[in-house]
Amino acid sequence: MAAATRDNLAARHLSIRDALTRRTLDALVVTSLPNIFYLTGFSGTAGIFVLTATRGWLLTDFRYVAAVQRLLATNDAWPDAAHVQVENSYDEALAALLVELGVRRIGFEATHLSVSRHQWLSTRLQVDEGPSGNGLQLVPTEGVVERVRVRKDAHEIATLRAAANLLSEVARDVLRTVQPGPSERELAAVIDYKLKSAGFARPAFDTIVAAGSNAALPHARPGGRRLHTGDLVLLDFGGVYDGYCVDLTRTVCLGRADDEMHRVYDAVAQAQRAALAIVAPGVPAAAVDAAARMVLADRGLGEAFGHGLGHGLGVEVHEAPRVAPRRPASSSHVPDASFESDMDIIAEGMVFTIEPGAYLPGWGGVRLEDDVLVTADGCEVLTDVPRELQV
Amino acid sequence: MAAATRDNLAARHLSIRDALTRRTLDALVVTSLPNIFYLTGFSGTAGIFVLTATRGWLLTDFRYVAAVQRLLATNDAWPDAAHVQVENSYDEALAALLVELGVRRIGFEATHLSVSRHQWLSTRLQVDEGPSGNGLQLVPTEGVVERVRVRKDAHEIATLRAAANLLSEVARDVLRTVQPGPSERELAAVIDYKLKSAGFARPAFDTIVAAGSNAALPHARPGGRRLHTGDLVLLDFGGVYDGYCVDLTRTVCLGRADDEMHRVYDAVAQAQRAALAIVAPGVPAAAVDAAARMVLADRGLGEAFGHGLGHGLGVEVHEAPRVAPRRPASSSHVPDASFESDMDIIAEGMVFTIEPGAYLPGWGGVRLEDDVLVTADGCEVLTDVPRELQV
Repeated sequence: MAAATRDNLAARHLSIRDALTRRTLDALVVTSLPNIFYLTGFSGTAGIFVLTATRGWLLTDFRYVAAVQRLLATNDAWPDAAHVQVENSYDEALAALLVELGVRRIGFEATHLSVSRHQWLSTRLQVDEGPSGNGLQLVPTEGVVERVRVRKDAHEIATLRAAANLLSEVARDVLRTVQPGPSERELAAVIDYKLKSAGFARPAFDTIVAAGSNAALPHARPGGRRLHTGDLVLLDFGGVYDGYCVDLTRTVCLGRADDEMHRVYDAVAQAQRAALAIVAPGVPAAAVDAAARMVLADRGLGEAFGHGLGHGLGVEVHEAPRVAPRRPASSSHVPDASFESDMDIIAEGMVFTIEPGAYLPGWGGVRLEDDVLVTADGCEVLTDVPRELQV
Repeated sequence: MAAATRDNLAARHLSIRDALTRRTLDALVVTSLPNIFYLTGFSGTAGIFVLTATRGWLLTDFRYVAAVQRLLATNDAWPDAAHVQVENSYDEALAALLVELGVRRIGFEATHLSVSRHQWLSTRLQVDEGPSGNGLQLVPTEGVVERVRVRKDAHEIATLRAAANLLSEVARDVLRTVQPGPSERELAAVIDYKLKSAGFARPAFDTIVAAGSNAALPHARPGGRRLHTGDLVLLDFGGVYDGYCVDLTRTVCLGRADDEMHRVYDAVAQAQRAALAIVAPGVPAAAVDAAARMVLADRGLGEAFGHGLGHGLGVEVHEAPRVAPRRPASSSHVPDASFESDMDIIAEGMVFTIEPGAYLPGWGGVRLEDDVLVTADGCEVLTDVPRELQV
């Protein structure tokens, strides 16, 4: 795969600029690193991007000189690219740039800027609404870039499809070779090795291997417990490929599954099929969650499914849409601001997981997770790994 | 290793409460996840901790019910532990708790709370300094917990020592087995596998394997370039062990090193020895950086050393102290608020890296990195891996 092309980036910038125009903003200061990657292709552990009506300014420090130069030298640099090398402090460089550009109404990402940095910038820029001020305004915005990110463009779809193929290959390999003997932790190390060897930059999150009753915790951490014949084992892993995240879960029995394992597995598999069947543009994501939840409730497993059905995938492993029950209206604010209700109606180009589960304390758990791309009239399942309880 | 004991946690809370008293605060709202881990032993991807004069309240959601129950059931739960199960939104639950507790002056972590969340909390709590308000105040604080974290306690030192031993074992194994053939990416996958197999929860950062001229980038990413006989190869990796990060770099020649390799290597090794020799309580961290930098400058490699000499290690892989040249006074504010000047005088119990390097574009680079613990009169090098150019 390659990086996003200049055309991809130009289209993304156009969408952001539309949003700025609607809000009568002269510039947007982007401090979220995933958003910066989305708008420039630059990935580092620090950076700021400033988008104005005519240019896109990337601020980075000395560590990334060579990387940025390489990026700017390609045909795929973001359009109207400009670069500022930060000498001392990012916020000092940002303030100097904003003053130099002469922008007045400056949007910032309120969910991605700390109170501390905001306070410093306000003071430094002499933000003042009164006649004695310099007319600069720092205007809070929420989800400007995330709203564009929620529907994937052609480059992102190609990347996510390639990533899902690669993850499926790794998963088939893991399922072919899993057997009693190693500890959860050892098997997790093997899975991570296979992920990196296959071309993923890194695991998308800490790989989960949970055997027996450990699988009753949806977010179990692999430990020293060894895998035994007859164990039900939950495997949940993902990878980051060219900056994009994919995620998959399978649950298998190492040996002969008993009736209860079959009952729970079949219920979860049926819940997943029910959800997959109704994914289509215009459907509320909460309705997809409800479809799976009803199947589990009908089988007496309603209480056993304690988490949301899925989450968006992209530059982040958890992003919009949120595929889960509707929240009470009074509590719409959550720390993770990528989940906003107006992004939770399914639309073409969205990519998310469908991962129902059933967890029974003391017994174990079953989860099945696949990644889907929403098409014009339904969805395409991007991951392709057998769903079989018995291996 | 085990978790921090209740005594460890009690001492940490005492230090924080002293800071609260000095600031006449009734409570501190901790939203930084590393700080929450430090104060409770809880590690998850979401949570809030509220410390008052008499209790410590942890807020977590349904995903962590079992983990928190287990933690509370041990003798090592934090003192005066209380738990709130978040039903809908973290900030809603936080606001309800603060009102219930009747606290008035509430400190929050200004570098770890977004403008958006702060705005929501201010509105929800009817923060108002006038007579019509309810008397609640949200008071910005910076580095309250980080200032305590900078000097490690007995549990942390034992954990970091164990982690450094483990990392050294992995590194000696890697250096014994490295040879021409694999690509940078393949070798990085092997290193990550060894890290996890040795007992690390995960790599502390993306493992660096940089061969030949690729090593001229201090933050190179492993790619498809294969390792050849005669290559200079830079290996930089670390791991997270029981929540604590360690970090190590070696540079080796696969075959017979030429004169330039020897010259650069010897200069970097000498710079590291010079720095190690002067680490002691009371010494400004910037002076340690200067000691190494002078050696390199004397050898004509001053320009080739573009980054700081080291960084603190602990719950985060980059934390205070900052072992680097002093910043100009005008730019003391940086996005990473863990670096604050008053923590940059070396003190007993600090743990940090010493990692001089020399990078020559088109040729390659050399870096040597070890982790040190500051003792009463000097330092103890925690990592123990041969420093030999030739393998």
